[in-house]
Amino acid sequence: MAILGGMIVDCAVYEHGKRRAGDLSLGQAGAACRSDGGFVWLGVVEPSAEEFESIAREFGLHELAVEDAIKAHQRPKVELFGDTLLVVVKTVTHPDADHGIGVGELLLFVNRDFIITVRHGEGELSSVRERVERRPDLLAHGPGVVLYAILDHVVDGYGDVAQTIDGEIQAVEREVFSAERTNPAEQIYKLEREVLDLYRAVAPLLEAVDEIGEGRFEAIPDELDDYFRDVHDHLQRVTGRVNAFRELLSSALQANLTQVSVRQNEDMRKISAWVAIAAVPTMVAGIYGMNFDHMPELHWRYGYFTVLSLIAAICLALYWRFKRVGWL
Amino acid sequence: MAILGGMIVDCAVYEHGKRRAGDLSLGQAGAACRSDGGFVWLGVVEPSAEEFESIAREFGLHELAVEDAIKAHQRPKVELFGDTLLVVVKTVTHPDADHGIGVGELLLFVNRDFIITVRHGEGELSSVRERVERRPDLLAHGPGVVLYAILDHVVDGYGDVAQTIDGEIQAVEREVFSAERTNPAEQIYKLEREVLDLYRAVAPLLEAVDEIGEGRFEAIPDELDDYFRDVHDHLQRVTGRVNAFRELLSSALQANLTQVSVRQNEDMRKISAWVAIAAVPTMVAGIYGMNFDHMPELHWRYGYFTVLSLIAAICLALYWRFKRVGWL
Amino acid sequence: MAILGGMIVDCAVYEHGKRRAGDLSLGQAGAACRSDGGFVWLGVVEPSAEEFESIAREFGLHELAVEDAIKAHQRPKVELFGDTLLVVVKTVTHPDADHGIGVGELLLFVNRDFIITVRHGEGELSSVRERVERRPDLLAHGPGVVLYAILDHVVDGYGDVAQTIDGEIQAVEREVFSAERTNPAEQIYKLEREVLDLYRAVAPLLEAVDEIGEGRFEAIPDELDDYFRDVHDHLQRVTGRVNAFRELLSSALQANLTQVSVRQNEDMRKISAWVAIAAVPTMVAGIYGMNFDHMPELHWRYGYFTVLSLIAAICLALYWRFKRVGWL
Amino acid sequence: MAILGGMIVDCAVYEHGKRRAGDLSLGQAGAACRSDGGFVWLGVVEPSAEEFESIAREFGLHELAVEDAIKAHQRPKVELFGDTLLVVVKTVTHPDADHGIGVGELLLFVNRDFIITVRHGEGELSSVRERVERRPDLLAHGPGVVLYAILDHVVDGYGDVAQTIDGEIQAVEREVFSAERTNPAEQIYKLEREVLDLYRAVAPLLEAVDEIGEGRFEAIPDELDDYFRDVHDHLQRVTGRVNAFRELLSSALQANLTQVSVRQNEDMRKISAWVAIAAVPTMVAGIYGMNFDHMPELHWRYGYFTVLSLIAAICLALYWRFKRVGWL
Amino acid sequence: MAILGGMIVDCAVYEHGKRRAGDLSLGQAGAACRSDGGFVWLGVVEPSAEEFESIAREFGLHELAVEDAIKAHQRPKVELFGDTLLVVVKTVTHPDADHGIGVGELLLFVNRDFIITVRHGEGELSSVRERVERRPDLLAHGPGVVLYAILDHVVDGYGDVAQTIDGEIQAVEREVFSAERTNPAEQIYKLEREVLDLYRAVAPLLEAVDEIGEGRFEAIPDELDDYFRDVHDHLQRVTGRVNAFRELLSSALQANLTQVSVRQNEDMRKISAWVAIAAVPTMVAGIYGMNFDHMPELHWRYGYFTVLSLIAAICLALYWRFKRVGWL
Repeated sequence: MAILGGMIVDCAVYEHGKRRAGDLSLGQAGAACRSDGGFVWLGVVEPSAEEFESIAREFGLHELAVEDAIKAHQRPKVELFGDTLLVVVKTVTHPDADHGIGVGELLLFVNRDFIITVRHGEGELSSVRERVERRPDLLAHGPGVVLYAILDHVVDGYGDVAQTIDGEIQAVEREVFSAERTNPAEQIYKLEREVLDLYRAVAPLLEAVDEIGEGRFEAIPDELDDYFRDVHDHLQRVTGRVNAFRELLSSALQANLTQVSVRQNEDMRKISAWVAIAAVPTMVAGIYGMNFDHMPELHWRYGYFTVLSLIAAICLALYWRFKRVGWL
Repeated sequence: MAILGGMIVDCAVYEHGKRRAGDLSLGQAGAACRSDGGFVWLGVVEPSAEEFESIAREFGLHELAVEDAIKAHQRPKVELFGDTLLVVVKTVTHPDADHGIGVGELLLFVNRDFIITVRHGEGELSSVRERVERRPDLLAHGPGVVLYAILDHVVDGYGDVAQTIDGEIQAVEREVFSAERTNPAEQIYKLEREVLDLYRAVAPLLEAVDEIGEGRFEAIPDELDDYFRDVHDHLQRVTGRVNAFRELLSSALQANLTQVSVRQNEDMRKISAWVAIAAVPTMVAGIYGMNFDHMPELHWRYGYFTVLSLIAAICLALYWRFKRVGWL
Repeated sequence: MAILGGMIVDCAVYEHGKRRAGDLSLGQAGAACRSDGGFVWLGVVEPSAEEFESIAREFGLHELAVEDAIKAHQRPKVELFGDTLLVVVKTVTHPDADHGIGVGELLLFVNRDFIITVRHGEGELSSVRERVERRPDLLAHGPGVVLYAILDHVVDGYGDVAQTIDGEIQAVEREVFSAERTNPAEQIYKLEREVLDLYRAVAPLLEAVDEIGEGRFEAIPDELDDYFRDVHDHLQRVTGRVNAFRELLSSALQANLTQVSVRQNEDMRKISAWVAIAAVPTMVAGIYGMNFDHMPELHWRYGYFTVLSLIAAICLALYWRFKRVGWL
Repeated sequence: MAILGGMIVDCAVYEHGKRRAGDLSLGQAGAACRSDGGFVWLGVVEPSAEEFESIAREFGLHELAVEDAIKAHQRPKVELFGDTLLVVVKTVTHPDADHGIGVGELLLFVNRDFIITVRHGEGELSSVRERVERRPDLLAHGPGVVLYAILDHVVDGYGDVAQTIDGEIQAVEREVFSAERTNPAEQIYKLEREVLDLYRAVAPLLEAVDEIGEGRFEAIPDELDDYFRDVHDHLQRVTGRVNAFRELLSSALQANLTQVSVRQNEDMRKISAWVAIAAVPTMVAGIYGMNFDHMPELHWRYGYFTVLSLIAAICLALYWRFKRVGWL
Repeated sequence: MAILGGMIVDCAVYEHGKRRAGDLSLGQAGAACRSDGGFVWLGVVEPSAEEFESIAREFGLHELAVEDAIKAHQRPKVELFGDTLLVVVKTVTHPDADHGIGVGELLLFVNRDFIITVRHGEGELSSVRERVERRPDLLAHGPGVVLYAILDHVVDGYGDVAQTIDGEIQAVEREVFSAERTNPAEQIYKLEREVLDLYRAVAPLLEAVDEIGEGRFEAIPDELDDYFRDVHDHLQRVTGRVNAFRELLSSALQANLTQVSVRQNEDMRKISAWVAIAAVPTMVAGIYGMNFDHMPELHWRYGYFTVLSLIAAICLALYWRFKRVGWL
């Protein structure tokens, strides 16, 4: 792949749904997409301003679209510049509970003649390319199919992350209501952050995909409307789950506070019960420690042992009673 | 029913509102629905990819619709592929309070010529088939009537579950405000989960049924619009109840926290009252345990008994006072 | 009223705004409404399926509308079946604070030729009939006027209930912030339930009355639009109040929790202050109860009384100090 | 002003933007507004049913509008009866923090030929009349200008009240987070009530003024649209502030609960520290109060003073330590 | 710059995208904008009523627009007076965490022939002027470009402030969940106030910029629509973040309350553990301080030391146990 710059990961021409053999230089790609019949798919990763400038010149991209492509941190959206669509998508990964959500970004320039995919952060597209190249019947519809395949792939990723978060929420619920005295407030809060991150990737995209599926854009042939509506449908499922997550987490935070209060009360009662039991010997012993001249019990033969037994009996009675009412 | 595969539970042709006698093979069913006059109702349960593939070929179903039919966990929706409607519905059961809500799924392919019902999980339709076959006047309107009957049946199920949840909420309310020291935080939270599950089945369907009732789809004859609006109306009732449930449960969680706090305060005051009563003998006994040379009371004849009586009197006075202010 | 069945409470023909003398049988009423010039008002209470079946046949009501009329527990709505409007309204009463809100139901079938009022539960309409019969000028506009009069009556009832609830909320507010140590959490929760019940009666009706007031239905002559908009306006006022109630009650629940916490803290400090005061004699007495050979104070003439005075002095000083900082 | 009834506060004819000299009887006013060229401004305060009946007859007001004018407690709105607009506005005053918000009501009947202002409660309009009479250029546009001037005046009043409430909220915030142990829960709640009152005056008016500013009504000449949009703009500002108030107060209530909890914890730790310090002498003295035959320390020359010093030393050490960790 | 009044900071004529050399008097500027070809950019800072009156006369501004320009504290909006747009924008700065958000105001009068920028508070525009003058190709589109450049600059400022707040929120989160016993309730509340301030600057502007970007106004040439949609897009990003902030802060406040409760419980348990340990010597010593005639232990040779050891052993055992269960 010597003729491709470092930022270009793949560049191919597709004709009648099939990939033309061989690699292309940027200039050849630009020429190919101006000629009839096929379309170009150019894959770029984190380009510098100068690198992308040359692509923009070759393919005639709008100044503002170019600015978006270089600076990441765009909002998911679809926008039409001339006859080229710019679709911005967030990719989301969530490898394990410890690391939170990883958010990447894809910028897709789509036209009747080309699709340029610009990737920032994670979100490898080679698996999409492979899958799409196995369907020449679909590819024959042009670059819109690639857009569909990428969106489908990304939205599947959202579903996986939602699934992971679902598991995490169930784990945190178990912890909230477990007999063990854990306080998962911090985990709940972190989950809320994750869910918000996911929400901010999904919600604006919903609107964007809806616009595409309604057939508003010429770059997307009408035959694909069903496909984009399918993606929209999957997005709505994820959105529904995300909204449910938010409600659940908010309730979990409140329920957790209740559990913490209940446990505090249990601790307080347990402590108090022991204090009460301990107060008995002190009290009784205090009475027989008084220095009155006339205290008949003091002179009994087994007075001491009687009192010790009495103390033990009262303590045991209290213990048994506290056990019964659930304070111990 | 030898000629039907394992996944096909029933397959019948209806002509002029009446069921044609005898079972059909898939091929016969496909032929019947292509001929004039009648329509086919094919009932399928959890088909494998290959099994459903053959049905899809026979009836000309869209690739994406087929994918939906095999993978469960769709969102309730109505979608038009060519001239075939795909309606996805969640079935909901709630046998008892211990097991939470059971969610199944129905995918309904409806056309002027056939209705294919694909069931995942619970949601037996044989009772619907029986009821519908008793109304040949309605059945003569075509497969749309079957769609209506199934939706009506499913939505009735939502109403039953809402009723059950209503009872559970009232039980939990009684527990929150009961004199017994229970903490139903976990039950409230579980109810919130159930209500969310129900909400996620009901809310998207509302929109879908609204679309059907507005007569947008050719597969549904206009004579049935009133019927679908009736279903829509029942759905709205359930939605209204579900929204009320959410608000009530959120308040119940908060009220429960208050009750827990109030009880903690009551416990603290009760404990403190006993501690105060127990402090009296210790204090008094401590004083008469001092070793001063000149403590006249020590030498009184009945000093000891006087002090014991004094202690008892103070303790009883305190006890009576604490009772009166409600601390004991 | 011998010719009327038990469920029919009144049946009259109105011509040119005036009631025709004498009672009618169902058949006569049906005939009257098919003839020109006047209209029939038929009042029915909790009919059985068979009873209402005969009415439906006589007046040509739709199968689904009939089903609604027999089963109560409909949602407030307006629906058009053929050229007959079905309006469902909840009646609400709130006699006193102990019993919560009583909800009844009215189903009104309105046409150019008749109005059939079906009542479930409370919601006597005889006062409406009297009032309406005093306005022949309005009655000449047909059955729509009766619909208006009933809605006006029902919505006035909502306003009364809202007024009652307002008073209850103010009472509960006073209790929350009173110096007495009450915990009105349960009352607040019950008020939330009542407000929700009222909301569920009012909110769907708002939409329905709006539709009527916009003159969408032929059964309602345009001259009455102002009147229905007036009802709509009153409904909006009630809705506004209900929404304010919800917000207030939610805050009251939270404020109540704060008050409960504050009182708990006050109790804790009061208890602690007394514990501190009681600890003084115990501590001092303990010191003079030690058995050292050389404790000069023990041999003083007034040692005992000095120590007693000292204890009293310290306790009083503590008491005064705690009073000053507000712990006692 | 002998010819005016007690409820009529002012009645004038304006021609070419100027007030015609002299007072008018009701009949003269009615006649003047039916003649060409000028318009009548009639100011009425809390009329009785009979009093207003005569005005309604003279100016041809709608039955329902009249009912509104006599009963106060309407919702802010704009409604068209024939060619006469009825605008209902709430006036709001907030003289000082102790008395809460005072709500009055203005009902304005506006026509090409007259404006009738009916006032209930506070909301003097004489200053508006003076200001408006200084602008004959505007007055020449007819009664719509008076409507604008009144709305502008009322909305300025909302702004003033919002300003006062802002100050109160800031005061309450300072109290919530002050070192002093105040609990402003009741003030926060009262502020929420005030804000709700203001909201219920402002929010429905927003919609009404929007309708007027869009030029929907013939009674309002198009030249005034900019002016009404200006009023709408000010209303939006107030609404924005009111919404911010609601959010702030809700957070303040929650923050206050936290502060109360934190202070409770501080108190508990302070109390516990003193209890711990007091436990030392009791414990040590108890040991030397034991009656063993062989306790060498008891026979030391300075045993007693040594132990006293020991107790003092331990207590001081504890005190110093508790100071350091912030418990005292 | 002698010919410019104190409030005028810059005044220039642009022709074909280039600045005409030399300063202008107000009269010259007015004349220039009435002549063909170029446009005037007049920059004004906090003008007095009289100062702005002269500008308004020269450029023909509407009475109400002028009133807005003098009084600050407008709401962000776009409004059309005749053919002159008035755009009101809030500028926001947030230099450091201690001082909260600083809000200024810009009022922009835009026309085909001129743009007048009126600044209240912070929000220097000289950097915008420099940047815009470097793009004569854009400037040739007229004053709309200046409006775009200013909005772009202001919205970038919002993004910076959002970034700062994001950092502050993360700092506060760390504090909430840190092991140190801090209570950042006040900081959370202050952040909520800041976020609300930012929200009230951003949210109304969103709507205003949307209107501009839709090409509704003649003063803005269609070529600039893409640019305004780009600004709108950035505004949406900020709005999305602000909404996320609000949700996070609300959860943080709740989580903080939980943490405070958990710490209170920890303190209570620690205190109780020490109290329990201290109760042992008192209790045991009390027993051996009793004055019974027959207490064999008292006469043992090493009774005293045995008991002291026993006390120490029990205390150590308790200490070890409390350590193990995490109470100490």
